Amino acid sequence: MSSAEQVARAAREASNLLQTISSGQKSAVLRRIRQVLEERRSEIVLANQQDKEAAQREVEAGRLSSSLFKRLDIETGEKYATLLQGVDDVDSISDPIGQVTLARKLDNDLDLYRVVCPVGVCLVIFEARPEVVVNIACLAIKSGNAAILKGGKEAARTNQALADAIQHAIATTPAVEGQTKFPERSIQVVSTRDEISTLLDMDRYVDLVIPRGSNALVRHIQNNTRIPVLGHADGICSTYLDESADTQKAVHIVVDAKTNYPAACNATEALLVHSSVINTVFVEVARALLAAGVRLHADDRSLAAIEQAGLLADAGAAALVSRATDADFGHEYTDLDIAIRVVDSVDEAIDHINTHGSKHTDAIVTEERKSAEWFMRRVDAAGVYWNASTRFADGFRYGFGAEIGVSTNKTHARGPAGLEGLTIYKYYLFGNGQGAGDFGVGQGKHQFLHEDIPIDNSVRDKFVL
Amino acid sequence: MSSAEQVARAAREASNLLQTISSGQKSAVLRRIRQVLEERRSEIVLANQQDKEAAQREVEAGRLSSSLFKRLDIETGEKYATLLQGVDDVDSISDPIGQVTLARKLDNDLDLYRVVCPVGVCLVIFEARPEVVVNIACLAIKSGNAAILKGGKEAARTNQALADAIQHAIATTPAVEGQTKFPERSIQVVSTRDEISTLLDMDRYVDLVIPRGSNALVRHIQNNTRIPVLGHADGICSTYLDESADTQKAVHIVVDAKTNYPAACNATEALLVHSSVINTVFVEVARALLAAGVRLHADDRSLAAIEQAGLLADAGAAALVSRATDADFGHEYTDLDIAIRVVDSVDEAIDHINTHGSKHTDAIVTEERKSAEWFMRRVDAAGVYWNASTRFADGFRYGFGAEIGVSTNKTHARGPAGLEGLTIYKYYLFGNGQGAGDFGVGQGKHQFLHEDIPIDNSVRDKFVL
Repeated sequence: MSSAEQVARAAREASNLLQTISSGQKSAVLRRIRQVLEERRSEIVLANQQDKEAAQREVEAGRLSSSLFKRLDIETGEKYATLLQGVDDVDSISDPIGQVTLARKLDNDLDLYRVVCPVGVCLVIFEARPEVVVNIACLAIKSGNAAILKGGKEAARTNQALADAIQHAIATTPAVEGQTKFPERSIQVVSTRDEISTLLDMDRYVDLVIPRGSNALVRHIQNNTRIPVLGHADGICSTYLDESADTQKAVHIVVDAKTNYPAACNATEALLVHSSVINTVFVEVARALLAAGVRLHADDRSLAAIEQAGLLADAGAAALVSRATDADFGHEYTDLDIAIRVVDSVDEAIDHINTHGSKHTDAIVTEERKSAEWFMRRVDAAGVYWNASTRFADGFRYGFGAEIGVSTNKTHARGPAGLEGLTIYKYYLFGNGQGAGDFGVGQGKHQFLHEDIPIDNSVRDKFVL
Repeated sequence: MSSAEQVARAAREASNLLQTISSGQKSAVLRRIRQVLEERRSEIVLANQQDKEAAQREVEAGRLSSSLFKRLDIETGEKYATLLQGVDDVDSISDPIGQVTLARKLDNDLDLYRVVCPVGVCLVIFEARPEVVVNIACLAIKSGNAAILKGGKEAARTNQALADAIQHAIATTPAVEGQTKFPERSIQVVSTRDEISTLLDMDRYVDLVIPRGSNALVRHIQNNTRIPVLGHADGICSTYLDESADTQKAVHIVVDAKTNYPAACNATEALLVHSSVINTVFVEVARALLAAGVRLHADDRSLAAIEQAGLLADAGAAALVSRATDADFGHEYTDLDIAIRVVDSVDEAIDHINTHGSKHTDAIVTEERKSAEWFMRRVDAAGVYWNASTRFADGFRYGFGAEIGVSTNKTHARGPAGLEGLTIYKYYLFGNGQGAGDFGVGQGKHQFLHEDIPIDNSVRDKFVL
């Protein structure tokens, strides 16, 4: 058996044991993790410094980008404190496991319950940012899932030090008399690409793959596994300025959506403009974008409007403006670039988004409720926004306490996914010896009652450990 | 563009239009479908007779099984009436679309809602039984999804006649003033295998694949698409007789679970027996199974118990008993066969099921609550039953009104899936010009409120059309 298969089997065994772990035990493990991360701070920071020194040489040799280098760091400023705070934050989210989402009496003495349970074994593949180890480990523990983590090789020492701390915390959390001991192999780390390709094949053991990283990483994983993938490859968000768009709102929203953090998946990549506002609202938006150093990839009509408004008079601004090509639409710049297209109706904007977008998050700026509602219903995306920046698409901003990722899937979890994305349900049926053949038409046969059982406190607590 | 791609694009366009169809319109279309199916009964039955005649020749030539032949029929006895009743049944289920499952104030004038919406475009691939056309079309319409249907070639004429009736019904349902016209290409039929392989590649247009049919069909589809698949390949259900199993319940449950409909995915394929009851409860269960003509594939210890109880004295019964091989466990017989294994603890039974089962439905027979609860938590299956037959795993028995399939997935939908399996959600955010950069620490920055908005009637109706 390969080492990757051993990891997968161990994760599955841990997952089976995790089904009978109580909320109290999970909380005890999380508190212990925080404690060990504090105790081992200097060791972990040392590992991080070694990673950064090695990475610095790669940056100097031009083999590593400086933005990736920056994401490696876990010690500067408030970073380590934020990492510790993240553990508390996950601990404070309410435990989803054991919630009853359906209770139904099929017949006397035949009661059906649908109960939230962990998905099982999650494989999380991420790049650079080592704090993901702690974040995902805590989310997995809180939701009763086993997790296999694979980070970027640049952060290998930091990842290992963090994982060691977490495993040590699990191993040294006192067992509770009469309860299942928290399984040590709940959280495991693998470090090579070969192991990943083996694991992506193990649909027998692994229930969910969560890639967090570049478009290329996610796409590669989606194309190489039968296991469900939670995540997004592209983040091609659009903002549409409708006929009745308010100029001030439009300027504020578009500048925020483009410049607040251009590398994020929820940054706006395309600006759609209703033809009736190209010489008014749009000009002010274009002016503000140029002032913020954004490169405008404009279609013919918007280019004409920019020209006519005299925005090209300034040589610096003129250098930022170019004619858009087809390839600009449906392209994720992840930089200070925006594609601009003029449309003649809200329906044309909707069609453009449903054709070129990535079902992530799209916004309309309008003062007209009817336009907004039409747009929000018809646009096929995880998030549909009226007069707000696409940058709000984020688990923390939505108040989920933590985020396992943003999903552009249309099954299971969609949009920013919190703990719920790591859960599913199972059906519990409590009988008294019944067979299906006892039901039907004819002498002595039973009929199904199908009466809903009220989900009161006694039902609510029935499956909570 | 290939014809399959045209079908997929048309389905996507229909799906976009379906986002603004009201519950009333969907209901009108369903009522009209029922009407047209009544009006065209003789045409549809004629097509069915032609299919059956052609199939009869295939049966005689040994190229088609008689069980498959039987499933073709839609006219005998109450079958057509049941088909019509199915339309009413779907119409009477409450419409899931527009339900609000989360409402949260992120800040003043910045409200977030999570709203149930259709998955989008579903590709449904099924064998033999033509009533699936009507059933799935109605479920798709009720849940606002576009559907592409591909049935078995043996039922091609019947499927086409049913699909024509449905499309005619959609086309002739009167439009409602001021509302979107129900899109005619919501329900489409394709008939060749080539089209299927093209469609399985179109993750751009198709959101969900639902295979209903043989193990081989489902497995082929799972291995040949990146699109999420809702269904199950194997249905390997187990029933475990615990130390304290009641004999009468055990006999009734196991005989029902094995013989009520052996070809069904929820029939029990493996019987696990605690070693303390092999000479008591198990003997009576074995006796009853043999009396029902079930072939017993018994491991050494259960074989010895059968022998010792004198069950092999009868030559007819003896002919039904054989020694189990490893291949018997984890095998779906879909016939009057059962694999039997003796275990020494409930944990061994759980391990056996988690290793050899297919995560479908597993039952424990016991009078001991603690054993039952342990088993139900630790067994990783869509259904975990205490003192009830595995045959209850079915959408109609669960009271879902209709079933799109039974899922052994651990994401999205698990177990018998009703209309909910065809839905997902999207996030609506209503703002007033905010950018994400307005929030954070520092002068003039806002803090997120994250206050839950009570889901009262006004919120509940906010997104219902």
